Amino acid sequence: MQSFQPPRRILMGPGPSDVSPRVLAALARPTIGHLDPQFQALMEEIKAALARLFNAPDHACVPLPAPGTAGMEAAIMNLLEPGDRAVIAVNGAFGGRMAEMAGRAGAEVVTVDHAWGEPVDPARVEEVLQAAPAKVLAFVHAETSTGARSDAAALCGLARRYGALSIVDCVTSLGGVAVDAAAWDADVIYSGTQKCLSAPPGLAPIALSKAAQAAIAGRKEKVRNWLCDFTLLMSYWGGEGGRTYHHTAPINALYGLHESLVALFEEGHQAVLVRHARMHEALAAGLEAMGLKFLVAEPHRLPQLNAVLVPEGVDEAAVRAAVLEKWDLEIGAGLGPLKGKVWRIGLMGASATPWHVRLCLTALGQALNAQGFAADAKAALAAAEARLP
Amino acid sequence: MQSFQPPRRILMGPGPSDVSPRVLAALARPTIGHLDPQFQALMEEIKAALARLFNAPDHACVPLPAPGTAGMEAAIMNLLEPGDRAVIAVNGAFGGRMAEMAGRAGAEVVTVDHAWGEPVDPARVEEVLQAAPAKVLAFVHAETSTGARSDAAALCGLARRYGALSIVDCVTSLGGVAVDAAAWDADVIYSGTQKCLSAPPGLAPIALSKAAQAAIAGRKEKVRNWLCDFTLLMSYWGGEGGRTYHHTAPINALYGLHESLVALFEEGHQAVLVRHARMHEALAAGLEAMGLKFLVAEPHRLPQLNAVLVPEGVDEAAVRAAVLEKWDLEIGAGLGPLKGKVWRIGLMGASATPWHVRLCLTALGQALNAQGFAADAKAALAAAEARLP
Repeated sequence: MQSFQPPRRILMGPGPSDVSPRVLAALARPTIGHLDPQFQALMEEIKAALARLFNAPDHACVPLPAPGTAGMEAAIMNLLEPGDRAVIAVNGAFGGRMAEMAGRAGAEVVTVDHAWGEPVDPARVEEVLQAAPAKVLAFVHAETSTGARSDAAALCGLARRYGALSIVDCVTSLGGVAVDAAAWDADVIYSGTQKCLSAPPGLAPIALSKAAQAAIAGRKEKVRNWLCDFTLLMSYWGGEGGRTYHHTAPINALYGLHESLVALFEEGHQAVLVRHARMHEALAAGLEAMGLKFLVAEPHRLPQLNAVLVPEGVDEAAVRAAVLEKWDLEIGAGLGPLKGKVWRIGLMGASATPWHVRLCLTALGQALNAQGFAADAKAALAAAEARLP
Repeated sequence: MQSFQPPRRILMGPGPSDVSPRVLAALARPTIGHLDPQFQALMEEIKAALARLFNAPDHACVPLPAPGTAGMEAAIMNLLEPGDRAVIAVNGAFGGRMAEMAGRAGAEVVTVDHAWGEPVDPARVEEVLQAAPAKVLAFVHAETSTGARSDAAALCGLARRYGALSIVDCVTSLGGVAVDAAAWDADVIYSGTQKCLSAPPGLAPIALSKAAQAAIAGRKEKVRNWLCDFTLLMSYWGGEGGRTYHHTAPINALYGLHESLVALFEEGHQAVLVRHARMHEALAAGLEAMGLKFLVAEPHRLPQLNAVLVPEGVDEAAVRAAVLEKWDLEIGAGLGPLKGKVWRIGLMGASATPWHVRLCLTALGQALNAQGFAADAKAALAAAEARLP
C-alpha cells in the first residue's frame, strides 16, 4: 500500500467537476478544532455566502456534512412524517430517489411521472395537488440524469397555492443556472459541492424557509434521521446563544467549500452564470455541427449538463474509454433507461471554460471517427470558436 | 469575504487531532471521478486497509461519507427495526446518543446506565440480557466524553451468548488502543477519521460481520436512513459485478484517509499503539506531579483521552483560554454533567508525540499558576521526561 497519486483527469461528466488549484490548496490548510473561535467565524461566513448564493436571505442555511444526497434526505426526512401525503414529480433518477426516501419517511407518496428528458409539467402537478391536499411537493430543478431544467418558480408557486411545502433539488443547478429561493418562494432547497461550485464532493448546502422551520417545529414524531435532523444541525451551526455539539464538522472540506464560494463571488455570480451559458452554446454548436443530437428539447436544456444521444451503430462505452485513454477526459454515461443511449457531458464550474469545450470536441470527434461515425471535428471546432469569447 | 487562513493550532482536545503534512498534502491532490477505474482501485485499497486495522478479515468494511456519528447511525438504523429490543450501555455522552438513535429507529430501548467515568459493567449488562432477549447490545468501547475504556471482548461475548448482535463504537479507540473485531467477535464496529487516525473529520469507517449482514438481509422494513443503508452502500463499494451508484464518494477526503492508513501501517500498527501508551504514561506522570487527578480509575483509562479533574477554585474556561492564547494549544472542555469539571486532553495520532507532551505540561502549568494553583511545572516535565523515549 503506497501513497495514492491520482492520474491527470479532465472532468466533464455529471460531477465531480474539475476542482481549481486554489480550492485544492484550501483543502490542505492545517486542520483546526470545530469549536475554535476562528472556525466558528468561518462557519458564519459560509452560512452568509450560501444565503447569498441561494438568494435566501430569510432562510436558514447550512452545509450538511455529507454528499448532496444528504441534502435530499434531510429535506424529505425533516418535512415528512408517517401518513403525510407527498407529491413528487419524477422526470429522472433523482426524482425517483426522492420518492424512495419519502416512502422511508413513512409518507404516502404520489408520484407524477414524466418521460426521462422532459421537464416537469406544472399542469400535471397541479391536477394532483387539486385532487387532494399534500404536505409536500418535491421536484428536481436540474435533473442530473437527463440534463432537463424544470420551471422551479411555477412549481414552487403551485405548492404555495395548494398549501404544500416545496422541496427543490438544486444539486446540479446551483452556480450553473439561476437559483432564487426568495423569488421562487421555495421552502427547502439544497445542493452539492461537486457540480457547479467545483469543490470536491462531500457537502450538501441546504436552505430552509421560515414555513419549513415552523413545520419541523410542529412535528409529532422525531426526525428519523439523526445526522440530518435540522433542529440538531441548527443548534450546532446556529450561532445564537452558543453551539450545541451535534457532529464534528468536516473542517477541511469546509475550507474547500469556503474557497469555492470566495472564487465564485470574486468572478461574480452573474458572470459565472453567463460563462456557463456561453460555454454551453459553443459546445452545443460544435456537437450539432458534428451531427450529434441532444436528448432534451432546446428550451429546457441545462447549460451545465449536456445529454447527447449516442448515434446508431456507435459503441458508447468504447467512445468513453477512448476519450479517457487518449485525452484523460471523463464524460458520463447514461443512467437507468438512458444507459447506453446518451453521454452526459458536464460544463460545470471550473470545467466550463473554452479550453474544455475545445478539448471535448476534439476528443469526441476523434473517438467517433474511430467508430466509423463521420463527425466533422474541424467544422465542430469552427462552430464552437465562433461562439467562444 | 476572503480566503480563510487558519491560525496555528496544536490540537490536544477530544478530536480533531493534528493532521500530518503528508495527509494534508494528499487532500490537495487533483479530484478525479468516483467511477474512474483508478479511484475504484483506491476504494479497494481503503476497504482492505480498514479490514486490517479493525482486524476484521471476514467483515464487510467501508468508510461512510459522513462524520463518525454516521457510523453510529448506520449501525443502529441497519440493525434495528420498529419493535426490536435494544440493550444499550450508557456511560457517557455517546452511549446516550446511541439510545436516542435507537428510539428513532423505532426500537424498544433498554439502557444500562453508569456513572460518567466508569467503564461499562458486564455483570449489569448480563442481568438485563438474561431478563429478556434483545436483538442488539450496543456500547461505546472508548467513551470520548470521559476517557473510560470498556471491556469490548467481554461485552461482545455476552451479546453472542445471549443471541444479540453487538454494536461497538470505536470512534476514539481505533488506532489508539487495540481494536480486534475478529477476536471480540463483534458484529458492527465503526470509527471516525479525526481521532487516532489523524485525518480530518468527515468519514466513518464501519465493519459488519456476516451475522450482521444476514440480519440486514432479513429485515421486514427498509432501513429508515437512505444514506446509511448498508445494502445500498455496499452495492456502491462492493466491487463484485460492478458498482451501483448510491452517492458521490467524497474523493479528496478519501485521499486523506488513505494516506493516513498508509502512514499508520508504515509506522506499524503495534508501534502506533505502543506510542500512544507511552505518551500517555509520560503525560499522566507529569499531570500527577503537578497535583492533578484523573476522572477515570487507572485500569480503565484510555491513553488517547485524558480526562483531568479541574482543581477546586480554578476557572476551567480561563485555563483553556490561556493555553489557546499563549500556546495555540487546544484542549477540550467537559460535556454534559462533566461541564466545568474536567479538561479532556487528547493524545491522538499525530498529536501523540513527546513534543505534544512537553508543550501541554508547560502550557498547562503556566496557566494553572496564573490561576493561583501551585503546579510545579518543572517537576512535571521531569516526571514526563523520565518516561519519554
